[in-house]
Amino acid sequence: MSTPFRVDIDDVEFVFFDQLRAHERLSQIDAYAELDRDTYAATFREIKRMAEEVLHPVDRNGDRQGCTLDDAGNVTTPEGYKGAWDRMAEGGWIAAGASPDLGGSGMPRTVAMICNNVFASAGCAFMMYPGLTAAAGRVVAAAGPDSMREMVTTKMYTGEWGGTMCLTEAGAGSSVGDNRCKAIPVEGREGEYLLEGEKIFISGGDSDMVDNIVHLVLARTPDAPEGTKGLSLFLVPKFDFDAEGNVGERNGAKVVGIEHKMGINGSATCVLALGADMPCKGWLVGKEREGITLMFGMMNEARIGVAGQGEAVCNAAYQYAVQYAAERVQGTALMRSRDGEAQRVSIAQHPDVRRMLMTLQVTAALTRAAVCRIAFEEDLAANTADPKEAARLHRKMDLLIPVLKAHCTDLSFEMASTAVQVYGGYGFIKEYPVEQLVRDAKIQAIYEGTNGIQAMDLLGRKMRVNSGALFMEWMSDSQKVLQEAGKEGFGTQAGAISRAIGQLGASAMHLGKLAGDRKVDTAFLQAVPFLKTFGYTLLGMEALDQARVAKKLIAEHGEERPIWVRKVAGLDFYVNQILPQAVAWAKVVQSGDESPLDDRVFA
Amino acid sequence: MSTPFRVDIDDVEFVFFDQLRAHERLSQIDAYAELDRDTYAATFREIKRMAEEVLHPVDRNGDRQGCTLDDAGNVTTPEGYKGAWDRMAEGGWIAAGASPDLGGSGMPRTVAMICNNVFASAGCAFMMYPGLTAAAGRVVAAAGPDSMREMVTTKMYTGEWGGTMCLTEAGAGSSVGDNRCKAIPVEGREGEYLLEGEKIFISGGDSDMVDNIVHLVLARTPDAPEGTKGLSLFLVPKFDFDAEGNVGERNGAKVVGIEHKMGINGSATCVLALGADMPCKGWLVGKEREGITLMFGMMNEARIGVAGQGEAVCNAAYQYAVQYAAERVQGTALMRSRDGEAQRVSIAQHPDVRRMLMTLQVTAALTRAAVCRIAFEEDLAANTADPKEAARLHRKMDLLIPVLKAHCTDLSFEMASTAVQVYGGYGFIKEYPVEQLVRDAKIQAIYEGTNGIQAMDLLGRKMRVNSGALFMEWMSDSQKVLQEAGKEGFGTQAGAISRAIGQLGASAMHLGKLAGDRKVDTAFLQAVPFLKTFGYTLLGMEALDQARVAKKLIAEHGEERPIWVRKVAGLDFYVNQILPQAVAWAKVVQSGDESPLDDRVFA
Repeated sequence: MSTPFRVDIDDVEFVFFDQLRAHERLSQIDAYAELDRDTYAATFREIKRMAEEVLHPVDRNGDRQGCTLDDAGNVTTPEGYKGAWDRMAEGGWIAAGASPDLGGSGMPRTVAMICNNVFASAGCAFMMYPGLTAAAGRVVAAAGPDSMREMVTTKMYTGEWGGTMCLTEAGAGSSVGDNRCKAIPVEGREGEYLLEGEKIFISGGDSDMVDNIVHLVLARTPDAPEGTKGLSLFLVPKFDFDAEGNVGERNGAKVVGIEHKMGINGSATCVLALGADMPCKGWLVGKEREGITLMFGMMNEARIGVAGQGEAVCNAAYQYAVQYAAERVQGTALMRSRDGEAQRVSIAQHPDVRRMLMTLQVTAALTRAAVCRIAFEEDLAANTADPKEAARLHRKMDLLIPVLKAHCTDLSFEMASTAVQVYGGYGFIKEYPVEQLVRDAKIQAIYEGTNGIQAMDLLGRKMRVNSGALFMEWMSDSQKVLQEAGKEGFGTQAGAISRAIGQLGASAMHLGKLAGDRKVDTAFLQAVPFLKTFGYTLLGMEALDQARVAKKLIAEHGEERPIWVRKVAGLDFYVNQILPQAVAWAKVVQSGDESPLDDRVFA
Repeated sequence: MSTPFRVDIDDVEFVFFDQLRAHERLSQIDAYAELDRDTYAATFREIKRMAEEVLHPVDRNGDRQGCTLDDAGNVTTPEGYKGAWDRMAEGGWIAAGASPDLGGSGMPRTVAMICNNVFASAGCAFMMYPGLTAAAGRVVAAAGPDSMREMVTTKMYTGEWGGTMCLTEAGAGSSVGDNRCKAIPVEGREGEYLLEGEKIFISGGDSDMVDNIVHLVLARTPDAPEGTKGLSLFLVPKFDFDAEGNVGERNGAKVVGIEHKMGINGSATCVLALGADMPCKGWLVGKEREGITLMFGMMNEARIGVAGQGEAVCNAAYQYAVQYAAERVQGTALMRSRDGEAQRVSIAQHPDVRRMLMTLQVTAALTRAAVCRIAFEEDLAANTADPKEAARLHRKMDLLIPVLKAHCTDLSFEMASTAVQVYGGYGFIKEYPVEQLVRDAKIQAIYEGTNGIQAMDLLGRKMRVNSGALFMEWMSDSQKVLQEAGKEGFGTQAGAISRAIGQLGASAMHLGKLAGDRKVDTAFLQAVPFLKTFGYTLLGMEALDQARVAKKLIAEHGEERPIWVRKVAGLDFYVNQILPQAVAWAKVVQSGDESPLDDRVFA
């Protein structure tokens, strides 16, 4: 009765092969020289198969059953999770982008991103475990203690051990600098500490799928300064281990509670007590007081990852809605609505349903293009011989990461809700998959820095780097693209996007002036509206790029394949129906509103 | 640990006493001549007490426990529901607006609306039962069979019996005319029929809170024409009864399934089989083939009611968020964020949180004003001696009902989600009340006609009545108000709203022209964007009205009470931060976009 889960690999291939031409440019990188178009295509087919046949089947039960915790601090994951985890590990999917020397699959980041997102579209909750394990593994690989680095990383990348990130405390969420967790050096044992404190909201804080868990814990050493600068990072295992990775005694990091949540119920969100009822050993990662720097590195990656989760939900939402709408028969064509004998049609024939489906299709496609592009640029930056080019790409990523994290996840919740709307009453009942999608998506706008925090990062940090040089560079690159597009017959659409960019620039100027006048609170009232202006404009650039590529392919091949027609139509839809949001939010930014700053309004 | 539920009666009083001056105008109506300001104020206090002390306490358990169904078709409601129902019945709250002769409380519709909405803000799911009982009671009172009308209505209004509306079938949701349920006259028994068929999505289809249930069932008599014109309405009880209302044998209307849903879990959503395993008797309501007319009457009321539920969720969301934000300490003031020693502040001090709180506050206040106004105009229309004035008010209601139903419920979901965002990670966990609010709110945009159906009703029916006279009348009334406001020092804000109205008018013209050119599908692509333009503009008019009233009160009293300051600031916020949405949607409407109509885009 329910709608089957489906992955649209054609759209993935359009982005990878046609839009980014990733296979061509990656083939010039030594590490990926062996990978050709066929290999990528086969990989994408296997990703689709894993998602449809292995991961999605455990998603619904994961939601219904959730996780349980015993008194010893052991989490039991939903039925089927362990089997899916083992298949992920066997296939080398846990760290697809990591070096094969350490148990990874040696794929480009772009492919790892596609893999993670397609898998997340099959089940957001399950994917928290491999996602965090791989992310923690990368930190250990980069800065873990010499004596255990290689062994621990390999254990994680191969899925024998799991990993977590332990940042948040009850009084320190968005304000990381307020972390109170303590780490006291063990005398005579270099790099070894005893940890004390409590961390909350720890995803995958325990699980029954792995032999050991490696927590990366942010904590404060004795005499460390207040604030973020006094924080250090520690590797804290669930079980002690020897140099070969044989697991020994229980360490004093223990899950003492799991949260009951709106969604992602298969992902155990844990309260982790450190050193509460027994000593909790940990090893320094990097150097003392380097915690915040290491954390920012992790966080940038994690934020791109969450943007990808947003894309994943948009794509799942579209695939469900478009299938359901094609099958569900209700009513007649509009022009025949007064004719009782008129043929009944599928709801996909009704204009308002088509508007919703097109909103879903376009949003799914453009978020995918944007997150794949940033992963691709990471590949290029990591592998170029030209340090200037690497720096340029990193600057662009720094600017765009908060925009993509927030915008893709605002959209994922909205698109999941739109999919429910396409289903009508059936969308609200658990027999169909879209209500779970709404519940699973909501956390994306909150974790890894709420979308409000992303907007503050954009406005307070990224826009100010080198007096706004990052932003000016993006603006001028975009204007060049728009000029080119104008010459290719996209003058109208490029003109509309150019006006949106103009408004984005005017918004930035306006906020810059407010900051200059020390009206910081007034400026930050508009942080989110500014980010939304940017986000809607950025996806407009992707819409234009997809249409340009499609138009060229149509001309080259002399045929109008549906996916190409869709991309050309998608640009029109985006410019007509979605881009006006960018202009509206720019108007909000420039309004100069200060009404919420009057304390009497909340009295 | 969680946030307490709270009702802001000051805001209700501002709308009722200051904005609408309802007490003064209602005192001129005979039926309400005895009710004075003190009586209303005491009633509002009692409504607050009921909501906070009786209804809210059963809300969370209702969500967790849900309903169960036994093999005999009996639904068990969550623990505490029966007690709350009895308190509602004792207090005369089930049909507050109905005549005391029939067991109602004889309150004006405006007060009944306030009562229902405040109660719904305490618990949407529970309020489905009294809401549907009262609505069904009104239909029975108006058109029920003579022999039982008074007795059945009284049983329902006093809460001894419950009521339902049975419209939807598996193949007939939005397309009501496709109803297949049959009603066969019983020979020799005037007005008695045997019903056969199955209805789905029946809220309160059974419950253990009442002695009997009265289903109002839409069905087709033999030889009735196809489509909506062939439908008749029937009163179908769970148990047979005698003239005094003593309950007898089981009738063949039986609940055979209940849905598992995203939210409103305390409300039993039933599959109702009619005549499946025993004969199902029913009595004609009104005349044969009058079903659709009676149903439209019910639906208009129900749609105003759902708009009110939307208001209720907006208000609950604001109250939770503003309390939480005031208590939750996190981070420092923006200007001191680099100072580790700076005082930690509540999150209500952070500009982005204030922006969210103000969005919630303003949206809650304006949806309340709009739905109270429409109820008030119903009171005036029902009681005026001037038939022209009554007709004018009905025309206005006809126009605005779809706008309010859709806009208030789009906003309720958005505001519930915004409240989650204010809470951050805690918003996603079940310990706090806002995640349930998101889940409960989503159905409002779907039931009683999806918001897409509302937009089609607006565009295809209401905008076309008398060649658009309803709409032109609303436009010209609004422009007059704007001119007045301009003279009172609100020139800037009135100017912005006037421009939005201008865009709304241009959008209507554009769509009218498309329809004239028989480009109906192109026009209906923009039905929802047109409704959104209208909705955002309409609430702008309420913002202006509230600010004008508040400004006068400030001048009269020579003091700036917080609620008045809030209303003046609210207008600025609305015009600066929300009204640009109206203009953006108007731009979408006028784009002429046809991209989703190409069949290849969904191939």
